[in-house]
Amino acid sequence: MIERLLPGIAWMRRYDRIALQGDALAAVIVTIMLIPQSLAYALLAGLPPEVGLYASMAPLAAYALFGSSSTLAVGPVAVVSLMTAAAVGDLATVGTPEYRGAAIALALLSGVFLVAMGLLRLGFLASLLSHPVISGFITASGILIAASQLKHILGIEAGGHTLIELIRSLAAQVDSINGPTLAIGAGATVFLFWVRRSLKPLLMKAGFGPRLADSTAKAGPVAAVIATILLVDLLALGEAGVKVVGDIPQGLPPVALPPLDPALWRELLPSAVLISVVGFVESVSVAQTLAAKRRERIDANRELVGLGSANLAASLTGGYPVTGGFARSVVNFDAGARTPMAGVMTALGIGLAALLLTPLFQQLPKATLAATIVVAVLSLIDIPALKRTWQYSKSDFAAMAATIAMVLGAGVEAGIVTGVALSIVLFLVHSSRPHMAVVGQVPGSHHFRNVKRHKVITSPTVLSLRVDESLYFANARWLEDKLYDMAVADKAIRDVVLICSAVNDIDASALESLEALVERLGAAGVSFHLSEVKGPVMDKLKRASFAGHLTGKVFLSHYDALAALDPDTTARASGRAAAEGIIATP
Amino acid sequence: MIERLLPGIAWMRRYDRIALQGDALAAVIVTIMLIPQSLAYALLAGLPPEVGLYASMAPLAAYALFGSSSTLAVGPVAVVSLMTAAAVGDLATVGTPEYRGAAIALALLSGVFLVAMGLLRLGFLASLLSHPVISGFITASGILIAASQLKHILGIEAGGHTLIELIRSLAAQVDSINGPTLAIGAGATVFLFWVRRSLKPLLMKAGFGPRLADSTAKAGPVAAVIATILLVDLLALGEAGVKVVGDIPQGLPPVALPPLDPALWRELLPSAVLISVVGFVESVSVAQTLAAKRRERIDANRELVGLGSANLAASLTGGYPVTGGFARSVVNFDAGARTPMAGVMTALGIGLAALLLTPLFQQLPKATLAATIVVAVLSLIDIPALKRTWQYSKSDFAAMAATIAMVLGAGVEAGIVTGVALSIVLFLVHSSRPHMAVVGQVPGSHHFRNVKRHKVITSPTVLSLRVDESLYFANARWLEDKLYDMAVADKAIRDVVLICSAVNDIDASALESLEALVERLGAAGVSFHLSEVKGPVMDKLKRASFAGHLTGKVFLSHYDALAALDPDTTARASGRAAAEGIIATP
Repeated sequence: MIERLLPGIAWMRRYDRIALQGDALAAVIVTIMLIPQSLAYALLAGLPPEVGLYASMAPLAAYALFGSSSTLAVGPVAVVSLMTAAAVGDLATVGTPEYRGAAIALALLSGVFLVAMGLLRLGFLASLLSHPVISGFITASGILIAASQLKHILGIEAGGHTLIELIRSLAAQVDSINGPTLAIGAGATVFLFWVRRSLKPLLMKAGFGPRLADSTAKAGPVAAVIATILLVDLLALGEAGVKVVGDIPQGLPPVALPPLDPALWRELLPSAVLISVVGFVESVSVAQTLAAKRRERIDANRELVGLGSANLAASLTGGYPVTGGFARSVVNFDAGARTPMAGVMTALGIGLAALLLTPLFQQLPKATLAATIVVAVLSLIDIPALKRTWQYSKSDFAAMAATIAMVLGAGVEAGIVTGVALSIVLFLVHSSRPHMAVVGQVPGSHHFRNVKRHKVITSPTVLSLRVDESLYFANARWLEDKLYDMAVADKAIRDVVLICSAVNDIDASALESLEALVERLGAAGVSFHLSEVKGPVMDKLKRASFAGHLTGKVFLSHYDALAALDPDTTARASGRAAAEGIIATP
Repeated sequence: MIERLLPGIAWMRRYDRIALQGDALAAVIVTIMLIPQSLAYALLAGLPPEVGLYASMAPLAAYALFGSSSTLAVGPVAVVSLMTAAAVGDLATVGTPEYRGAAIALALLSGVFLVAMGLLRLGFLASLLSHPVISGFITASGILIAASQLKHILGIEAGGHTLIELIRSLAAQVDSINGPTLAIGAGATVFLFWVRRSLKPLLMKAGFGPRLADSTAKAGPVAAVIATILLVDLLALGEAGVKVVGDIPQGLPPVALPPLDPALWRELLPSAVLISVVGFVESVSVAQTLAAKRRERIDANRELVGLGSANLAASLTGGYPVTGGFARSVVNFDAGARTPMAGVMTALGIGLAALLLTPLFQQLPKATLAATIVVAVLSLIDIPALKRTWQYSKSDFAAMAATIAMVLGAGVEAGIVTGVALSIVLFLVHSSRPHMAVVGQVPGSHHFRNVKRHKVITSPTVLSLRVDESLYFANARWLEDKLYDMAVADKAIRDVVLICSAVNDIDASALESLEALVERLGAAGVSFHLSEVKGPVMDKLKRASFAGHLTGKVFLSHYDALAALDPDTTARASGRAAAEGIIATP
């Protein structure tokens, strides 16, 4: 029972020395990676650097207790930080207590929403985000994030939530680029690129084992941080206009209630929902990929509760919205993390850093953090995916391209909403014109097949139609018109039989359309029948007393229908003579 | 060619005396019905009474030229008037020129939107409004409209866009009810009810023909109007606090450009879209019902252009949004209208009224108009539909009930948006868990059937699964998890074969899910195969080089797959011995 409430108990019971060793090593490596990242993502979210550290402590412990992945590393991530900046930026000014309070409230709402979704077992709703929309959203967010960091690398003031605003704002300030800042920013960027691309192979050539080489390469950002701090300190670059992180309060996060302001909550709620859903979808796909490698299983609803409790923890300890990060989870996994204890240890590591190391970051140039972000998010940008999707499906591509265009042109929230809406509408449009076939009798048998594909015999007075989809609101009216047109196009037609063998459901809209169709056909002197209606559908039609509306009958098999409505043609078609081709098809 | 641009030409060419007689009679009856209605609906929309008359002239002529129904009667209608009041009421105060300008701009936007939808042939998008949502919306609007008119019948000041606001506002004023107003309002309401219910049978008993009786009964509102004008005039009730319509400018509508204010347009656009779609859906279903009775055909896209041009005409002549009205179209049809000329003649009739009769309406009590509205909208309220829908389908009922609750509790726009969103989400949820069957071989045949329904033979190492739906974003992740769980649940399983005979499409999300599934199963030591993939789907998979990801193969038939993966079981199952039941199913 307690394990259902607190899934973390399960791994704690099984904990041993081997797990401890794996977890401890992974925690050290992830901590080293996470310190610059958490400072950088706080900067991206428009928050003081310590907020990034706070968001990397309690949430990790909370996820360890409630989450279902053994290796997912939770904390501030790039896309969610960008979305936080967009959501909070509309309500408050960067640097004010209101801004910080709104970010904390956003974590609270996001946490409540995620936990509620999980407890209500609504995890499957996240599947309404189609892959191309998510992929386009991530790519466009990556571009937007990289563009938003250029100001720090150039040492100028700029802002904006769309690519156009950012470029315009940067262009206006291009005269006031700060040379030393640019040198540090560009240098750090190039260095981090080199580390990412070339250091690991180089180390392996030099005799490092592949895992050690990888871990060393992951420490690149830390090296850049240390080097640029020393540079600024030694050359007194702060006085030359290089913006630094400045004083970071030393100590553990403040435990406090988030702002209890219903008006603020109402304004933040839509953003909180979007952030939660995007964060969850990203996180759960990372978790699933890693889980499969160890033949473990991710429970989407438990994942929701896990991520939700992480966000609640963030909101109670001065943090901001968090989720599972891709790069850091892979590092955690590769470094040998066995259980969520690695996350708890990472939280302790970050806690130590917050207690002891923050004075060292005072002279850390913002340009270095920006370089870290730029290099990190470039891996999010997946341009080839656009081409692949174009080749695979034009309508998926349309949803993807619209998402990218809207994110870049109108901001993250407009982008994700557009993408989701468009992918749903395109799907409904697609299924609103279902496949439909006129069928005829296969000579010498009781089978009926598409007249376009088989040599079959059709009745001159009975139109036999098969619809290969459930009847529901999006296709009801189209089918109504189509069937009516087909029935009245041939003046000899007296009966229409709709074959329902592929109809799994008829919703209320389709029922009304059928009733309208029966009436319209009746006015035109044509009777309407059904055949091969499935049991559950028939039950529904009976409840609605549909038979009372019907001008015709409901037949068990389509052969029965034809035999009753046009016995002559049916008898001819069923005979052996027909099978042997002696009687021509009419 | 000209007929394609101006469909009205067609009926003009065929026009003769018989058509003229029918149209003229219908026009007289509809005009008599429309005069009080147009004044009343303008009142409902918060506009001066003459605006209702203006909206009943030029739009009718425009529809006659561009619309596709021969008998649809266009003009101000109750639901659209309510939606206009809700949309414009947010931006301006009733009675100001800004309010009137915004209503005119709303007609312009609605016209442009409808014409654009028609030219782009997007009429089918209206099918995204499911019938239960429309029905719930109309019912709730009827209740809201009736409640909004109570203030006129009671002679008090009240307002609000939701039922709660209205009731609270009425309750606060209940002390200041005006006796004479209540007497007139209640009297008119009771009289109109009696006319509606009992007058026609009474007249028929008295020897009137059914059509004459019907037409006479339809003149009930006019009788109420005349009687109450006389009452107010003779008893000088205006001085006793009975609110009257007051001066109505005499003359034809002013021809002028609508307000050219992009900021206003932007604010009105969402409302214009909602009004257009609701108006179109209502109108087209009336038009189709009437058209079927004469074996005519309604072209949804031409209907859009027709209604759009009617709204453009309204916006150029000081009117407000219009659409086809149910009651008046039926009256028009029953009175023998043959062509859209009846609409043109009705417009002329209203024009004459505007030129000559408006001074007579000066003493018309608002309470009488309110009574007209209340009695008219009660026919919109369809409570039994709630019960029918509940019995027929719980998810349709949920969408319907949510729509009603939101319209009453949060207003018309929130209501329609909620209903549409909910019906789409419920549909996606429904189709996100498609029917799926484990299949086995029918002994002695090469056929495969559901293991739950047939006595079949299954392979101990091969899991055969058939999915009865296209694979797309809403079901992709669920299927991925389900298939993975089923495959790893039985440790003996080495191969999974997905039978794709019912899969008409695989979208990009489902493709990625399949790739992820192949990888996850691969990590678990299980190979993944496909069988019976349709041609177009196979082409798509080839374009995406899916085969390269596959750990297994693509088989033409499922029998081929089984024969290759588990030849022993397959051979046993195919043999005659199996057919005769000598070998037991494993």
